[in-house]
Amino acid sequence: MICAVLPALVRPLVEPHLPDDVDAHWFMSSDEAAILAPQAEIGWFDMMDKTGMLAPVKAATALKWLNSIYAGVDGMPLDLLKSRGVIYTNGAGLIASSVAEYAVMGMLTIAKGYREVVRAQDRHEWLKGPPARGELAGSKALLIGYGAIGKSIERQLNGFGVEVIVVRRSPSPGALGPDNWRARLGEFDWVILAMPATAETEHMMGEAEFAAMKPSAALVNIARGSVVDQDALVTALRDKVIGAAFLDVTTPEPLPVDNPLWALDNAHITMHLSGQSQSSLFQRAAERFLDNLERYRKSEPLSPMVDLTKGY
Amino acid sequence: MICAVLPALVRPLVEPHLPDDVDAHWFMSSDEAAILAPQAEIGWFDMMDKTGMLAPVKAATALKWLNSIYAGVDGMPLDLLKSRGVIYTNGAGLIASSVAEYAVMGMLTIAKGYREVVRAQDRHEWLKGPPARGELAGSKALLIGYGAIGKSIERQLNGFGVEVIVVRRSPSPGALGPDNWRARLGEFDWVILAMPATAETEHMMGEAEFAAMKPSAALVNIARGSVVDQDALVTALRDKVIGAAFLDVTTPEPLPVDNPLWALDNAHITMHLSGQSQSSLFQRAAERFLDNLERYRKSEPLSPMVDLTKGY
Repeated sequence: MICAVLPALVRPLVEPHLPDDVDAHWFMSSDEAAILAPQAEIGWFDMMDKTGMLAPVKAATALKWLNSIYAGVDGMPLDLLKSRGVIYTNGAGLIASSVAEYAVMGMLTIAKGYREVVRAQDRHEWLKGPPARGELAGSKALLIGYGAIGKSIERQLNGFGVEVIVVRRSPSPGALGPDNWRARLGEFDWVILAMPATAETEHMMGEAEFAAMKPSAALVNIARGSVVDQDALVTALRDKVIGAAFLDVTTPEPLPVDNPLWALDNAHITMHLSGQSQSSLFQRAAERFLDNLERYRKSEPLSPMVDLTKGY
Repeated sequence: MICAVLPALVRPLVEPHLPDDVDAHWFMSSDEAAILAPQAEIGWFDMMDKTGMLAPVKAATALKWLNSIYAGVDGMPLDLLKSRGVIYTNGAGLIASSVAEYAVMGMLTIAKGYREVVRAQDRHEWLKGPPARGELAGSKALLIGYGAIGKSIERQLNGFGVEVIVVRRSPSPGALGPDNWRARLGEFDWVILAMPATAETEHMMGEAEFAAMKPSAALVNIARGSVVDQDALVTALRDKVIGAAFLDVTTPEPLPVDNPLWALDNAHITMHLSGQSQSSLFQRAAERFLDNLERYRKSEPLSPMVDLTKGY
């Protein structure tokens, strides 16, 4: 028998489809997960509060396969998992289209000055002219990161006639590499951050990068707060070095009530809601888990697997 | 010589490219346009206030070609133009992608509950969960009207994985006709109005149509206020017969401050800003005019031409 410890939340979606040789245990809380963890060969320890996942993961000494709906692996003990030889499948791509929709919504609302329209309606006031006259059509975007989210963003922006230039870690035709995108920063109306949070990408966008951007350009961050030097961003927004920033992610989260970003009229804070603003995550995650479970039982490779050395 | 009366606003874009046989006169106001109009063979009488265009159009008794940046022809004396044998080129398509961008922005902001995010930032409040969990991906849209704007919307929605079903006046493969779309209304998450305002389309969406829509569906109107029975819409929104309405256009415009639409939390009023929220209209209009001027001088057909009988 294969012992699996799984969240009760996905039980209705998963249990009816489990093969007979899987002995499933369902947890409701972090404590229950930690108690069940030592016997788990397969562990799916997701909970709303990601910090609660650490205890069961550490306690799962017999673990062979760790599964998660989250795409980000920050906070997970990757070295420990590596030393135990654990396979780690994450949620990469599960919410990609939703996060991409959010990024494109951010671009459209900035282009049109839509927040001012919302505020005008709240005052019952008919605006006589547009708060902003931006267009996606004919604009140019630098897209840093080309995972599932980046690919989704590119597909969506293509429909608007946006010219998208991609930055990838590994060299590939038509894409810029880690060493040659900075020199091109001044060409773009949008700089979209969709890369994983790693040591290499920490504070990738800072004072020098903002200074190199067009003064009218907008930064869109749906990656992680850590990829941006936030103090430098506050200064760049305040001094109009760049036009605007659409920030689904910040440092820290939640953003403290007295953080200067809240009040900057060119900062758009969206409270890490991009991935949550969808309704089919658990359905898609359950389908993928069952798919991978079949491969696991046949000793076939699982997908998508986290590279425990690279950290994404 | 060909006498042309043109708006001073486009002079820098047009004058350097005019052929020698065109005798151009530039007006700054409606009064100037009306004085110059009688000698005009070519008239481009656009002004910010469309009502000011009527006097010069009527006074232009020698007119052979009337040009306009506006797509809508409501308010123009079509019968008079027809009796005078005037060719009428309008602005169809010039702002199509911008209007389409606005419609798609409306769909995204409704799907994600973005207005609540804006209001939360104004309170410096980090929302713990999304105000709405809608997705464009996998949703289904009924697109009524397949002119330049409709085609733009379809192209943009394709990038999001929205299934778009088109309604056209003239039968064509894959599209619904005027007689068979009502029976399908219950299938769609979005009903997008992008048809011209004609006698035929007046109040096309009313109580029966709203009742046939999904209770969660949203109406998107970037056509004209007159295509919707607005009293019926207010009732449908208030009683949650439909989920929401994104209204770039209303009856009348501006919407009076005491109109009930302003305060409905599922009505999104955007003050007919969609076509203005762009920056390249005059550039594109000037290019098109010069293009048409060349054809006019060669007695070739101009484009796009208004059908003075159909009224679009």
